[in-house]
Amino acid sequence: MSTTTSRGAETHGGDDGAMAAMPTFRYAVDILPKPGILDPQGRAVEGSLGHLGIAGVADVRVGRRVELSVTAPTEEQARATVERLAAELLANPLIEVHAIELLGAISPAGRGTGTR
Amino acid sequence: MSTTTSRGAETHGGDDGAMAAMPTFRYAVDILPKPGILDPQGRAVEGSLGHLGIAGVADVRVGRRVELSVTAPTEEQARATVERLAAELLANPLIEVHAIELLGAISPAGRGTGTR
Repeated sequence: MSTTTSRGAETHGGDDGAMAAMPTFRYAVDILPKPGILDPQGRAVEGSLGHLGIAGVADVRVGRRVELSVTAPTEEQARATVERLAAELLANPLIEVHAIELLGAISPAGRGTGTR
Repeated sequence: MSTTTSRGAETHGGDDGAMAAMPTFRYAVDILPKPGILDPQGRAVEGSLGHLGIAGVADVRVGRRVELSVTAPTEEQARATVERLAAELLANPLIEVHAIELLGAISPAGRGTGTR
């Protein structure tokens, strides 16, 4: 392209434009009870296995999975936001452990393809 | 195979011996609300972001993560058990989608190293 316009990287629209020029990262936060912490939901699943006629299943742990999108200048900054969110809101650090997984990134030009 | 011994497939120990000779597979089942299905927990997380002073986070989905161990002769058979468990007990297929992830495998010789 030899045109002088900059489609997809326009930043003259104020805050909205600045956000539009930043990539969006999709993360998963997996939260599980710490080893040794009682897991009543896991025991309930194990207790149901016999009724279903399922054998050979053990050590069931039940936790939560949170998926979210973060718009930030860099992946490091996006991950720092997710880490803060996980530690302060999503998980209880006394009884739970959490792990953060990057699922994907959407560049500014492709933002319209994000699924909700 | 031209040998007459069958190390690693020994089945003379009864049920216990048969189980001990089989590998154990660790899986995660991720269960999330279907796209378009109302997610009140996700909305609650989004509503808390302002109080925490966190910006740039969107499209929060809250689901469950179940980790479990399956002892079976092959990975295919172990996965079939997990698939049945996910569809019949862990997820509600009307409003939820699930994904199965293999986390690792423990061979019979290394069974003692499994973590609970």
